[in-house]
Amino acid sequence: MTGTETIDVPSLTQLSVDAFRHAGLSVDDAEVSARILVDADMMGISTHGVVRIPAYTDRMRRGGVDPSAVVRVDRRAPSLAIVHGNNGLGTVVGHRALEAALAMVAETGLAYAGCRNSNHFGALAPYGLRACDAGFILIAGTNASTTMAPWGGTETRIGNNPLCIAAPCADGVHIILDMAMSVVARGKIRAAQKAGLPIPEGWATDGSGTPTTDAGEALAGFLLPMGGYKGSGLSMAVDILSGALTGASFLSDVSSWSENPDTPSDVGHFFLLIDPEKLLGPDAFAAAMDRFKRIVLSTPSANPASPVVLPGQREQECRRGAKKDGVRVPADLLASIKQLARGHPGTVK
Amino acid sequence: MTGTETIDVPSLTQLSVDAFRHAGLSVDDAEVSARILVDADMMGISTHGVVRIPAYTDRMRRGGVDPSAVVRVDRRAPSLAIVHGNNGLGTVVGHRALEAALAMVAETGLAYAGCRNSNHFGALAPYGLRACDAGFILIAGTNASTTMAPWGGTETRIGNNPLCIAAPCADGVHIILDMAMSVVARGKIRAAQKAGLPIPEGWATDGSGTPTTDAGEALAGFLLPMGGYKGSGLSMAVDILSGALTGASFLSDVSSWSENPDTPSDVGHFFLLIDPEKLLGPDAFAAAMDRFKRIVLSTPSANPASPVVLPGQREQECRRGAKKDGVRVPADLLASIKQLARGHPGTVK
Repeated sequence: MTGTETIDVPSLTQLSVDAFRHAGLSVDDAEVSARILVDADMMGISTHGVVRIPAYTDRMRRGGVDPSAVVRVDRRAPSLAIVHGNNGLGTVVGHRALEAALAMVAETGLAYAGCRNSNHFGALAPYGLRACDAGFILIAGTNASTTMAPWGGTETRIGNNPLCIAAPCADGVHIILDMAMSVVARGKIRAAQKAGLPIPEGWATDGSGTPTTDAGEALAGFLLPMGGYKGSGLSMAVDILSGALTGASFLSDVSSWSENPDTPSDVGHFFLLIDPEKLLGPDAFAAAMDRFKRIVLSTPSANPASPVVLPGQREQECRRGAKKDGVRVPADLLASIKQLARGHPGTVK
Repeated sequence: MTGTETIDVPSLTQLSVDAFRHAGLSVDDAEVSARILVDADMMGISTHGVVRIPAYTDRMRRGGVDPSAVVRVDRRAPSLAIVHGNNGLGTVVGHRALEAALAMVAETGLAYAGCRNSNHFGALAPYGLRACDAGFILIAGTNASTTMAPWGGTETRIGNNPLCIAAPCADGVHIILDMAMSVVARGKIRAAQKAGLPIPEGWATDGSGTPTTDAGEALAGFLLPMGGYKGSGLSMAVDILSGALTGASFLSDVSSWSENPDTPSDVGHFFLLIDPEKLLGPDAFAAAMDRFKRIVLSTPSANPASPVVLPGQREQECRRGAKKDGVRVPADLLASIKQLARGHPGTVK
């Protein structure tokens, strides 16, 4: 870790576009992908932001992802589409699928687009933001290579598959829930290990599936799903909607991104959109959401220094701040992205 | 508690129909409602089965629920409907809405039916079973009167809103996830209190929002949502899809079923259906689900006596057993239902 640097959003976006262009993406695809990753950084979701550019571009160079893939939308019915990613970059596939779903929902009021043969597509929140800005409710998810055991099991056979449910609000600050299924991210356990601290009960098990408070044992074992069988079941449900229903791989059939960087992952995603205006007429949903937000936000908080917030509120506040003040990026990462933007992949760590 | 009695399914169903008939439901509505509650008992979800009949019929007698309500389906687009419950019994409203959604999805491959002015509609799993038996994927939920605080808050402003995601399988044993948002049900804390035992950390807070392991303090406080802010956010998302998007009440505007038994609750539900055959053609989804199940079920388990199971598997095994061997019902409850079935509400405790 070499400290952080602050960079304004247009500059970070341009560097990202250039890095993707040098890896073989078209201008359009590079711009789409840069926006999705920079949006994540702007929202404070730095684990799914430009930090992914070295791996994304590396995979395009190794053939694990096809930078010149043409995404094909197969519209199966007025409200249904299968999107063939053809092993394109996940952000490109995800963007095209969401656009296809947006076109369908504008016509019919309801749309499902399911993607197959895709790859890691960043965080869900930027897609939620896009859908809400267009005035639609989004339910979306993706599967991923497996990192958790099904509840009670001792082999990784389910992904930490995120689910997003997002609803538009007239004031432009939408409700955007974007959650993965583990109690905590692996990074928190790594931090505890570094600090020599035990982890709380309920975060993880060791390799035999036995609960542990030892960070090292936990890292060699399994993250626990939130709510036990509930999070495990919800991860499976997201995988059915993303994988089984789209013709993509699912569960342990998804090829590991990190272990097999030159093999297509065949990840699946889904985007389900609903038009609240078509259901309720104009204004009624906006008024309901306004009241919804006021009820939640006026809840007395246990700690006055931490008021109750809505899902996605902090991320959108963070994004507004980033527009003005830029984004903080680790200095070594920024150096790598600058190298990639100049077309020098060899020097990237 | 007076012990339990075993009763065969046709007899329990007939008693339930008779009890509902005496409370004013039509034959059709009584049969629909009896089936949904008896299905829950057959699936082992006894908290949402015929145990609800005394309260359901009591509310119909007090005017809190209108037994002669005519449910109206307002089809807003080929795949979208708002279902006006008109303060009918929740099971009747839920059943009509699911039937409306099934009719739409058969035409278009995708359907959303949102209910307003409804009431408690039992468990979600029986609706999931119905949708899967018809060959469709169901995503469904309901809001409820508030019993939890939003994450970090100290007033009950969110319901323990359940979410169901169900997927059909060709062998007739479907995947049916039906989960509420709290870490544990209130009943488990009551059991700990009775036994004089502390509760684990993470189950509940006291009335000030401070985590507690004291069962009594917990019962005077708040159930905690699974995954902290995740379960809290998911409960809000289910409420948006059930309440804000349907024109029903939501959050603390839902009238409490137990505190105001003579006031309409204005509960909202939603049913979202997807036709996997229209997306993938015949057989492809069935083959995918078959493989999905085999991957999960072959996971080595931490405890060989507890093999890894799929969501809804135990409930469906339980249901098959109940078809043959009947259902066990508390004796005093069965006596109450028999009284109601003879038209004697006055003697029901």
